[in-house]
Order: sequence, then structure tokens, then C-alpha cells
Amino acid sequence: MKKNLSSYLLDRALIPSDGRRRIVIDHIFPRVDCGGFPLKRIVGERMTVRAHVFADGHEKISIHFAFKHINEEKWNEIPMVDCGNDEWEASFPLNKLGIYEGKVIGWIDHFQNWLEKLYKLPEDDKELGVELLIGVQLLEKNFLELSHNEELKWWIEELKNERLSILQRVHLAKNPALQQLVQKCPDRSLGSESTEPFLIFVERPKAQFSSWYEFFPRSWSIVAGRHGTFKECERLLPEIASMGFDVVYLPPIHPIGKKARKGKNNSLEPTPEDVGSPWAIGSEEGGHKAVHPALGTLEDFRHFVEKAAQYGIEVALDIAFQCSPDHPYVTEHPSWFKWRPDGTVQYAENPPKKYQDIIPFDFETSDWEALWEELKSIFVFWINQGVKIFRVDNPHTKPLEFWRWVIWELKKEYPETIFLSEAFTRPKLLYGLAKRGFSQSYTYFTWRSTPAELRAYMEELTSYPIIEFFRPNFWPNTPDILPCYLQYAPPSMFKMRLVLAATLSSNYGIYGPAYELCINTPLEPGKEEYLDSEKYEIKKWDWDASGNIKDFIRKVNHIRKNNVALQRTDNIRFVQTDNPRLLAYVKDGPAHADPLLIVVNMSKNVEMGWVNFSPSLVGLEASKPYELMDLLADVTYTWHGDWNFVKLDPEICPAHIFRLSQYG
Amino acid sequence: MKKNLSSYLLDRALIPSDGRRRIVIDHIFPRVDCGGFPLKRIVGERMTVRAHVFADGHEKISIHFAFKHINEEKWNEIPMVDCGNDEWEASFPLNKLGIYEGKVIGWIDHFQNWLEKLYKLPEDDKELGVELLIGVQLLEKNFLELSHNEELKWWIEELKNERLSILQRVHLAKNPALQQLVQKCPDRSLGSESTEPFLIFVERPKAQFSSWYEFFPRSWSIVAGRHGTFKECERLLPEIASMGFDVVYLPPIHPIGKKARKGKNNSLEPTPEDVGSPWAIGSEEGGHKAVHPALGTLEDFRHFVEKAAQYGIEVALDIAFQCSPDHPYVTEHPSWFKWRPDGTVQYAENPPKKYQDIIPFDFETSDWEALWEELKSIFVFWINQGVKIFRVDNPHTKPLEFWRWVIWELKKEYPETIFLSEAFTRPKLLYGLAKRGFSQSYTYFTWRSTPAELRAYMEELTSYPIIEFFRPNFWPNTPDILPCYLQYAPPSMFKMRLVLAATLSSNYGIYGPAYELCINTPLEPGKEEYLDSEKYEIKKWDWDASGNIKDFIRKVNHIRKNNVALQRTDNIRFVQTDNPRLLAYVKDGPAHADPLLIVVNMSKNVEMGWVNFSPSLVGLEASKPYELMDLLADVTYTWHGDWNFVKLDPEICPAHIFRLSQYG
Repeated sequence: MKKNLSSYLLDRALIPSDGRRRIVIDHIFPRVDCGGFPLKRIVGERMTVRAHVFADGHEKISIHFAFKHINEEKWNEIPMVDCGNDEWEASFPLNKLGIYEGKVIGWIDHFQNWLEKLYKLPEDDKELGVELLIGVQLLEKNFLELSHNEELKWWIEELKNERLSILQRVHLAKNPALQQLVQKCPDRSLGSESTEPFLIFVERPKAQFSSWYEFFPRSWSIVAGRHGTFKECERLLPEIASMGFDVVYLPPIHPIGKKARKGKNNSLEPTPEDVGSPWAIGSEEGGHKAVHPALGTLEDFRHFVEKAAQYGIEVALDIAFQCSPDHPYVTEHPSWFKWRPDGTVQYAENPPKKYQDIIPFDFETSDWEALWEELKSIFVFWINQGVKIFRVDNPHTKPLEFWRWVIWELKKEYPETIFLSEAFTRPKLLYGLAKRGFSQSYTYFTWRSTPAELRAYMEELTSYPIIEFFRPNFWPNTPDILPCYLQYAPPSMFKMRLVLAATLSSNYGIYGPAYELCINTPLEPGKEEYLDSEKYEIKKWDWDASGNIKDFIRKVNHIRKNNVALQRTDNIRFVQTDNPRLLAYVKDGPAHADPLLIVVNMSKNVEMGWVNFSPSLVGLEASKPYELMDLLADVTYTWHGDWNFVKLDPEICPAHIFRLSQYG
Repeated sequence: MKKNLSSYLLDRALIPSDGRRRIVIDHIFPRVDCGGFPLKRIVGERMTVRAHVFADGHEKISIHFAFKHINEEKWNEIPMVDCGNDEWEASFPLNKLGIYEGKVIGWIDHFQNWLEKLYKLPEDDKELGVELLIGVQLLEKNFLELSHNEELKWWIEELKNERLSILQRVHLAKNPALQQLVQKCPDRSLGSESTEPFLIFVERPKAQFSSWYEFFPRSWSIVAGRHGTFKECERLLPEIASMGFDVVYLPPIHPIGKKARKGKNNSLEPTPEDVGSPWAIGSEEGGHKAVHPALGTLEDFRHFVEKAAQYGIEVALDIAFQCSPDHPYVTEHPSWFKWRPDGTVQYAENPPKKYQDIIPFDFETSDWEALWEELKSIFVFWINQGVKIFRVDNPHTKPLEFWRWVIWELKKEYPETIFLSEAFTRPKLLYGLAKRGFSQSYTYFTWRSTPAELRAYMEELTSYPIIEFFRPNFWPNTPDILPCYLQYAPPSMFKMRLVLAATLSSNYGIYGPAYELCINTPLEPGKEEYLDSEKYEIKKWDWDASGNIKDFIRKVNHIRKNNVALQRTDNIRFVQTDNPRLLAYVKDGPAHADPLLIVVNMSKNVEMGWVNFSPSLVGLEASKPYELMDLLADVTYTWHGDWNFVKLDPEICPAHIFRLSQYG
């Protein structure tokens, strides 16, 4: 539009610069916010997109959806289907890992509109000759000029051929071959394209379905009291795999700072024997790209990764962007830190926690671009050692747009990477990080302790648009969190929270062996820190101590592997019970595959109650009896109708995982 | 960000170009779609804006909202208040008609963060000296360099003054005067501004509360059979005002084309006496900027407008962007029309209607900019004749972005203008036009004939975000629409639909005198066209014919004027009844002013039933009896509690409009 027309709307692209573009592309969905954040999908899935598209007037419009992998040049285009009410839909397979972009393209289909009018004219209408000429002009001006198609030229000559009667030529114009030809070279000179971004992160199935096991390698020496090594840890892998975990996540494996090192139980007065916190990264032995010498060599680490792969386990590393005061960065890149007038750097805090052994990067440094690139190179370094899964420590204390950038850049080059956000922070920040690309996120699961709280939380997590960008990863414990309800609690409570984590969310994890050994003593009653936390010392674990729940975990993970219903999170529907201490829900797979009904007793006592569940919810016939096989107890029940009775004694088992079926 | 960092995200402004800008401005609301469409407000109202804003980490942030009238240069800035959960709110008055824009500005408040830390340090802390130096550096680097403020320089010197003790200087730093000074020159060098548009159309109260009366001036000659004139129509104004209408809307007043003129009842074979349809605009006597000579002169029209103003009535004109075949534009601007090879222009259609006497503009003309400007100039022409309200005919058959542009441009220069969209079309198109700036819109009210349908429709219209951009104008009839339920119907049905229109929506209108005379004969049974429609002929009306409902209309409009509850549309809440033929709803004003309960019998028969209404809904005490004054019947009732009985005989009155009160 020229300068004499308004520039405000034009400058902000609120109206098209060519006012003849009459197609309005109003709304594309699903979308996250206004399309600036990618949707998350799994490779092999189909993507279904809808758009509201219309034009003024009553002419027919043609709408296409164009999409491409961001690393490719060529756009793929498919027609969108008119669903009525000005809504259009397209669906396409996501065959490749990485980032896809898409857009809607629309134009008024003048040839089609002309053809429809031609069809409406009776064959003896005196307008027929004029109408035919209109079509010829249209083809010459709007199509031939654009395409220079030889075949089209022939058609036009025939339509003008005066040796044929008008009626003969009208029949010619209605020939589907001409229509097909014209569709191949549509006139889009006045078409419109959507301007709002449409992005998809296509990830590996593991981004959606994973079972994590976290442990500290240094606690697993064969010799009591000695610092464990990667080599020694290889012997754990068969048992971790047998328990059914497919991701082993290691706290930071780098050299640990000596300056301001923490002692046992977070003490500020360490003894010379204290090994420090693995999150105090860096010493004269190296930083984020080095391995703690006591754990072994980089080669040992790679061997551990390869060995794990043989057991079907991937190794996930902890990425904690912070330094101990003697990290090499501190002297090599002093501008990356905020120096105080006394020559020190203020230590890190994540209120109410204080990390006196850690100094943060100054993301307001004028050298921020070099800092961003260096941090990205840390990921790349470990990707080159065979690591594809990263658990990111406290991402909410680093700029959000840094994460959007670094995850985007890594996904572009290494689309198989998976990122787990450890942001125990306020809701908008937590979701804001997930929007910026994290594949999975820690959640508030750990602090939802009643059936009503958990149900409300799951309903929030599976609501639109959160379900489009946020994949929860439920942890019943972490090295930082022994939740109040597990403190001094019996094994049945540990089993209960494990069933919840493992069946509510398709991604979950435990910090072991504290979990399976049901370690339940806090530093102080009411605080969530473990007593004698492994974060500050080498532990000696008796993995087969009596009272461990390894077999129970094995069973639950086995059920997860064998029931597709448990391999996604968006398929949950809650079911009513008359006892507020019971939580009941159903899950099933595509076409009602593997229908499950899960009932969890969330109290410490024996609970019983009626479950109101219509079998038609999972595709069973409501009028007939149906079988419930309890996959935990290996017992089968028969239920009839909507209301049925359950009784759960936590001492025996705090949950039913029923697999439903029906004969006849 | 430099070229070595990703350009995809940068090019699309998905990450800031300076990565040190750590504030995330996530969501501003209310908003229409992604902010591209203006919110609608009335002058004098306060605008309350919320935004989700946060940064990484735990530092304090400062958030401001900046706004300005689009015709002014200077931004006004007010602090946003932290509402918790990372939501911030600001509120400001809209004092001026026209377009406002706004944006959120956020920055990390380093001085405030430093001050808080200082307050936390005990007065004997050995860190106090270092902390003081940090503050001095901060003030020098982040504030003094930016502001060169002399007073600040003095403070900094004092904070460095070694003749004072550290503690004395710390006390100085805590002086509120310094804090105030720093707040005046905040360091926003790494601040962020929202990028999504935030726009408000601030309109006159009449955009929200108006009562329209449409009539054809040509039918009001003093001499039977003669063409009426503006002068003759002036005598109608006292009665229209007395009936309580404040907008008189005239169908097009321009010369009517002679070529292809329509005869009576839309006949294609007119007689020489036929006057044609006023929508077939233009003849050799002029086009959209001319007055039909038979109606009088432009001066007569201006006089009519002035006379109307004396009665508190504004004149609204019909803007129909289309031409009769002999409109001067056709020869002056042939490029604005789509010519057929036989030298004709295809006539207009709005399926299933055919307008053989009208040819449309070709909005795909390469000369579209001149066309847009000319169409805008038509509005300007009539604005200069004193017209500020425009009813736009079939806007959905012209490009949507043309409307966004032309309304924006007119609002900028003539902020007192009001635009009513006559788009009886599909929902997304209808809403799409309203989003682009129309002050009011025709709706589907006319085709919602049961209480359930009307309730669902009102709930849609008052839902977010529709309520932010769409103001309904309810019409029980128009010259095009005699709805089925009014065909051969008694006056009570006309009263019933009038009460609904006038109390559900604060904007409503009737086509008179057909409405108040209860004209009920369609062209054919089941068709919505009037028999012997005024669109194609001069009518002779007996305005005082027996059975007219003028007094009823007078009463209803009087009630509207005296009860603020009826002067907006977003304050409706429906109330349950046990009879599905009764529709009941409450409305009240600010602080429960003018509380009304309205019950309408939507059937033709006597209906009775129980209304479930809690008086606390409109601020009355639920435990006490309350009075209901029926403003239509001038009868008072006393009700107790939640369930009360009503009986409505349409022959007496089809509705109650109860005004509620309570003593003691």
C-alpha cells in the first residue's frame, strides 16, 4: 500500500500490503499462545491442523497447508478439507525427528467459481457464449500468463475454436482434464499466507514414555568407603534394566570444586575427607567438559554409556550451568561472572536454599553471546560422547530465551536429544520453560498428596493448550526431596506413590536406591532434605536390604511396558468413587487398546468404597459383565454395571491396576 | 544477536536481539485473538489490563503499563501492581474518544534488589562495607551514566564519603529520598517491551446504548401517492422522539438507477411509475455523495439532521458500496468494475438473493487504492453533512481488511463515528467484521425463537473474548425480514419480540412503522419478505391505525432510559424457570444499581411457572422479602425466598420487567 494510505496498520502487518488479498486466515490450531512456541509430537504420529479461513463474498476458496522440516528447503503442500463453518483441516505424517514449520495458504479459486456458474447455466441459455469468453479470458490472464503451460495453451485455443459450436466448447470446458490441469497451476497472485508461526518439535518416543533411575556413581565402589567409578557402576546395569528402567540419570560427573566445598549434611565446615556436592562443578582438574578423576576417565564414561545401551538403557546427564569458585571459567572468562568490589563473586541462591559452594554465571554480561555459545558447546561435547538425554538443573535461574535458543539450535543439529527441565518454581515460569522447548518437565506431583489434588492437577496438565507443550515427568522423590508423607512412612506408602507416578504420567523416575530401600529419615522432621544426604557424602548401600520394594517396582514397570495405555499421559479420565481417599482413573490406547482401570488407596489405612465406572468408557458393552485382571495381584474379578466395590489394604497392596476385557 | 547465532528465531522476533533482556512478557489481556484487534470501550470507563510477566531467577522486577491516544506523541506510564502468581495489573481512565494503544514495559530493578539485600544484613555484618560499594557502583554505572542527575551525583558522593562511618552511609542508602530519586530515572537499558499490539477503540456512549428507528422518507409525503421529502419527514421527529428512539436510520437517500430498475415486489418488469430500490444507488443525477432530487436538496437533508438533533435524535445513513448500472462511477472509473466480454458488468448477488439492479465494485482491481480512498471519502462527505452514525450494508461482500483500514482511518480523524455492520452471514465472517472495527453488529437474534436458543445465544455473545469486540444490535424486523413467527401474528407477539430486543441488548432497533403497526403479511407464506415491500414502492402509512403498539414501545424505551441496567449488554444473568416457554433474566448496573428481573412468555398462550431467583444475585438480602414493581404494568408484588410464581397472559402483556427493591 502506498504512503498515502495508513501506515500504522501496515507497519504492524495488521493489513496486507496488497489490499486485493481477500482471504482471511484467522486462527490456526492447535497452537501454543499465538503460535510462537512449538507443539510437541512424537515421530510417526500424524499431525492434524485446523484453520479458520474465509473470504468476503460467496466465492469458492482453495486452502492448502504447507509444511516442511526446518532443515529442508522444499515445502510439502496438501489441500485442506472444508469441514464447514469456515473451518479447514489437514493431516500429515511426521516422519522425521526435529523441527517442522507450517503455514496456511489460501486463494480465491476463480476458475472453479467460473466453472460452477457454467454448470448452472441451461444449455440453451443465451449467456453461454459470453460466459465461455469470460472463461477463456480468465485462463489466458490468470493462468497461462503465470504458467506458460503448453497443454493449457492448446485447451485455450480449442475453447476459442470457432469451428466448434458454443455448446461443444462448453462441454470441452467442463472436461475434468482441463480442471486437473488448472489445479496444477493455480493462480495465487492474490492469495494469502498465514503470518503467525506454526512450529512442531518432533521427538523420539522416549520423550513421551520413559522410566528414569537416578543414582550417584560415587556410592557404588566395590570397596566400602572408596569413591565409586564408572567401571564399578557397570555391574548395576543388569539390575536397573531388570527393574524396568530405561534411562539412568547421573548427577554431575565433573570435577568438584575445593573452595567453599560443602561437608556432610550441607555443612559449611568440611573435613579434608569430604567429597563435596557434585553440583559444585569445576576445579583445576577441569570443568563442564571434564570427568571427575575419581570416577574414571572420559573413556570409562563412554564405556559405561555403551554398556548401558546393551541393556536397553540410555544415560542422561545433569546439566548444571554454574561453577565452583575454582572452575577454570572463572579465570579464563572473568567477564562471565559478576564481581564484587572485594574481588569475590556472590554465591548462588535458589531461595530459601543457599549454595555457598557455587557461583552463578552473569547472564547480563556484555559477552553474553560467547557465554551462550560456550554453554551450547557443553551439550555438544556430551552429545559427542553418546549422551542424548539431558536433565537441566534449575533452568528457571537462567534467562528463558537462552533456553529457547539453545534447545532450538541443538534440536536442529541433534534432533534425537531430549531435555528434562528441573524447574521447581512458580507455575508461569515452569510452563514458560516447557514452551521454550524442554521435552519433559518436573512438576508439582510430589506435593499433591490427596486424590482431589492429584485429579485437579492431572486435569490441568492434560488441558489445552498445556497438553500441547508440556510433558510431565513425575518423581516420587529426588535427592533434594523426601516428601513429608514419605518421612518415617512404611513401604506401602512408597509403593503407593510409585504406582501413582508410573500410571498417571507416562514419564516418571525415582532417585535410587533411596526409593526402593524406602529410606524415610529426613534431616529434620518437616524438612524435605534426607538425613546424611548422598549429595554431600559417599553412601554405602545394601541394595538387597530386607523391606526393599524392587520386585514391586519391577512389576509396575513391566505393566507399563506391556500396556500402551500407560505410554502416554493425555488419555486419562477420572472415575468417581464414594470414598475421597481412593483415586480411580481409566486409561486406554488407540481404539481402546489395553483398557485399564486403576484404583489407588492414598491413605495409610484399609479403605473400601464403590467405584462408579461405565465400561463403555473404554469400549466395552455396558449391559454385559466384564472381567478385571488385577495385574499387580494376578487375581481376576467379574464386575457388572456401573457401581462396583473395591477394598484396598495397603499392607497387601495399595492399588489395583485392572486390565479389562469382555467375552462374547 | 550476531549472525553466528541462530537467525530463524531472531528473524521472527521469537527471541530478543539482545539476549540480556531477561523479562518475559507472556500474555496481556483482555485481548482479541493475539492483540491485533482493538478492544471496545466507552469514553469515561476505566480500562483494566493484566499481564503475565516474569524473569528468570528471584530478583524483583518493575512493570509499567504505557498507553497513549494514537493521535498523541507522548506515552503515559503507570506502574502495574503485582497481583501474585506473576500477574500484574494496571487500570487507567479512557478520557478521550478514539484509538488508544498500550504496551507493557518491564525491567529488573537492580537498585531495589540491592536495597533489599542491604536491609537483610545485620548492622554488624562484616559484608556491609562491600555491599555499600556494590550499591555505589550500581548507582554510578546503571543510573548516573544514564540520567546525569545532579542530585543523584550528590547522593553518590555522600555514600562514598569516607568521613562518614559505613553504618552512617548504610543509613543514608536506606533513605527513602534516594529510593524515590532512583525510581525517577530507572535503568531500563536491559528492559523489555511487549511486542504484541494492544489497541482500544474508545467510543461514545451511544455505541453501547442506542434505540434505532428505521423508516423510508419517500413514504411520508403529506399528499397521498406523492414522493415524500426530507422537509415533510421533519414532522415525524416529535413522535419518534416521544416513542423513545434516539437514532433515526434512513435507507440510502441517493439518486436511484433507472437501468434495470426493480418494480413492485422485486419485479424485473417495472412500470414507468416505479420508484425503484434505494439500494440501486446512482443515476445521471449523481451517486453516493448526492441526494435523490425527489427527497429534496442536500441543504434539506442537513436541515433534517439539525431538526432531529433538537429532538435528541441522530440521523444514521445507510452506506451501501454498490452501484446502479447508471452510477457516474461506471463511466468515470470503469476499472473499478469487472467487465464481461459483452460490455456488461455482472450484477450483484448475496445468495439466494439476486440484485439485478445493482453492480458490485471489483475489489481485485489494480486501481484498488484509489477505490479505497474514494469509498472512504463517501463517509467523510456525509460526516461533513453532520452524520456520525453509519449502518453499513452487506459489509461481508467487501474485503474484510478494507473495513479494518477504513474504520481505523475514520476513527482516527472522526472518533465520534459509529458503525453498524449489517452482515447476516456465517459466524466467523460476522465476528471477523466486528473485530475489524464495527461498533455494533446485526445478529442472529431474529432467528432465535425459543428461550433455550436465546439464552445460549446471549451466553455466547457475552462470553470472552466476544464481549470485548462485539456489540449486538437486536432487530425484531427489518425491511428484508418479517420473521416467520411474526407472520399473521397478533400484536402480543410484536410486543414480546420488542421486549426481548430492548432488554436483552442495550442496542436495538425496529423498522417502522411496519413494526408498531404490526404488519404481518409476507410476500409468500414461509418467506421472510414483506408483501408489497416498501423497498420497491412508496407506501402510505396510517401511523395511528388501531392495534398499533406505539404506547407499548414508548413505555419500554422509557424504562430503558431510566434504568442503567438496560444500558449495557454484558450484565445479563439467566435465571431458571420450570416452564421452558418462559425466559427469565436479571440485569443490574454498577453496585447493583437498578436491579431488574425480566420474565418473558415466548409462546402465544397463557403461561405460568415458577422462577428460581436468589435476590442476593442483585445485592438484596436473601432472607428478607423484597418488592417487585412491574414497570410495564405498574403493579407491585412481594416475593419471598428463591422460588416464586408468575403467570403471563400475552393478551394482557407478554412480559414482566420487575424493578426490585427491599426495605429495612
